[in-house]
Amino acid sequence: MTPDDIRLATALADAAGAAIRPYYRQAFKLEDKADASPVTEADRAAEAAMRAILEAERPNDGIIGEEYGTVREGASRQWVLDPIDGTTSFIAGRPIFGTLIALMEEGWPVLGIIDQPIAAERWLGAAGRPTLFNGQRAKTRTCRQLDQAILATTSPNLFSEDEAGHFVALASKVARRRIVYGGDCYNYGLVASGHVDLVVEAGLKLYDLAALVPIVEGAGGTMCDWSGEPLNADSAGDVIAVGDPARLDDILEALG
Amino acid sequence: MTPDDIRLATALADAAGAAIRPYYRQAFKLEDKADASPVTEADRAAEAAMRAILEAERPNDGIIGEEYGTVREGASRQWVLDPIDGTTSFIAGRPIFGTLIALMEEGWPVLGIIDQPIAAERWLGAAGRPTLFNGQRAKTRTCRQLDQAILATTSPNLFSEDEAGHFVALASKVARRRIVYGGDCYNYGLVASGHVDLVVEAGLKLYDLAALVPIVEGAGGTMCDWSGEPLNADSAGDVIAVGDPARLDDILEALG
Repeated sequence: MTPDDIRLATALADAAGAAIRPYYRQAFKLEDKADASPVTEADRAAEAAMRAILEAERPNDGIIGEEYGTVREGASRQWVLDPIDGTTSFIAGRPIFGTLIALMEEGWPVLGIIDQPIAAERWLGAAGRPTLFNGQRAKTRTCRQLDQAILATTSPNLFSEDEAGHFVALASKVARRRIVYGGDCYNYGLVASGHVDLVVEAGLKLYDLAALVPIVEGAGGTMCDWSGEPLNADSAGDVIAVGDPARLDDILEALG
Repeated sequence: MTPDDIRLATALADAAGAAIRPYYRQAFKLEDKADASPVTEADRAAEAAMRAILEAERPNDGIIGEEYGTVREGASRQWVLDPIDGTTSFIAGRPIFGTLIALMEEGWPVLGIIDQPIAAERWLGAAGRPTLFNGQRAKTRTCRQLDQAILATTSPNLFSEDEAGHFVALASKVARRRIVYGGDCYNYGLVASGHVDLVVEAGLKLYDLAALVPIVEGAGGTMCDWSGEPLNADSAGDVIAVGDPARLDDILEALG
């Protein structure tokens, strides 16, 4: 990962935002994918715009995209793209979805962007560098005990029955009025900026999670799976993001 | 309700927004109320600012506020204030909370504002007038069947065990990927603007719901309780907002 990769990732986010903004809160056709996720014209336009730039500038790098799949699967460097993470929030007209852009080297995420193109908010994380929010350093905050944490999770429907049991065990350690639903990738940005303490989710795909890791970790937090293992291309999709790494043991214990 | 009441309500929203914005995404002390809702300095500053204006301009009207209680309880005209609806979103740094301002006459809501002071978004509804979003007419949209609806609800924790059963029965009629969580009052504004089709919640207080009714209904939608009864000062707090009134019977049937 080089400074030019950071410049390129920023250009990808700019292109995605330009593609998405005209569709926000406009009537558009919804289609159903095989997994019943609503797909929008915006989703496809944004990924196509990012892929065109990558093919021109990084013809040897792999691309893994939510909409258009994988090219150059064995490449040591892979760009992972989710043009609209939080599609339901997007189609509902809520400005808390985001474009996710990650660069992975040998299967490990080393660069990530969360871009919210309506509010013009961007988190940028890169291994070995401090995370930036709109160009300013972002830092997670201290959390002395779980019952003081703000816990965010997108939806109770993320969890299998077994996972739901573990989540409920954790949530019971947090004050009920400090649990906030909805938000998708945006919640992880808020962890990096020290407004949310903890996100616990499951069922995420690689393109949902790869960008988040450098952002949260470069701001002082930790990300891992529900077993405490670091996240990479082989992760199963159960995810913890915690702003104060000192709370991770409490979280893993509460999850059971 | 007079045009001057609309002017006054707008002035209240301006004052609340000015009081709230300095606290957004800033560190501040959280306190626990008896019901464990996080209360912020912003909440109190915004309600105090609105009350000062009302006391000066409408000394005979009643006030029912979330933070500072009720004055002139028997008044035929009552202003109902929730300075920050969606406190958890506010403290988590998500711009989807809102200030709620309602005027009730003889216990019926006739004027309502949802104001989002960070994104500068305001819905204004007044009985007999079209609802406005940032000064432009807002309209709900047609929804031909429930399985095409976008359903929003703030949290699964809103519901008692019995209510949760009814909600799940309704939610099973909606495509799972079209259910969006979080959002509080903001979701009702999105119904008025035709981006969300349906909000179903329970446990709302008068100050959570009074402002929503003129906004949703002035945009072409319907609000009622889970029995289909109109909402007023005596409502129990179970709430339906539907953009297309033609779907109300389906919703009541699905809720059981």
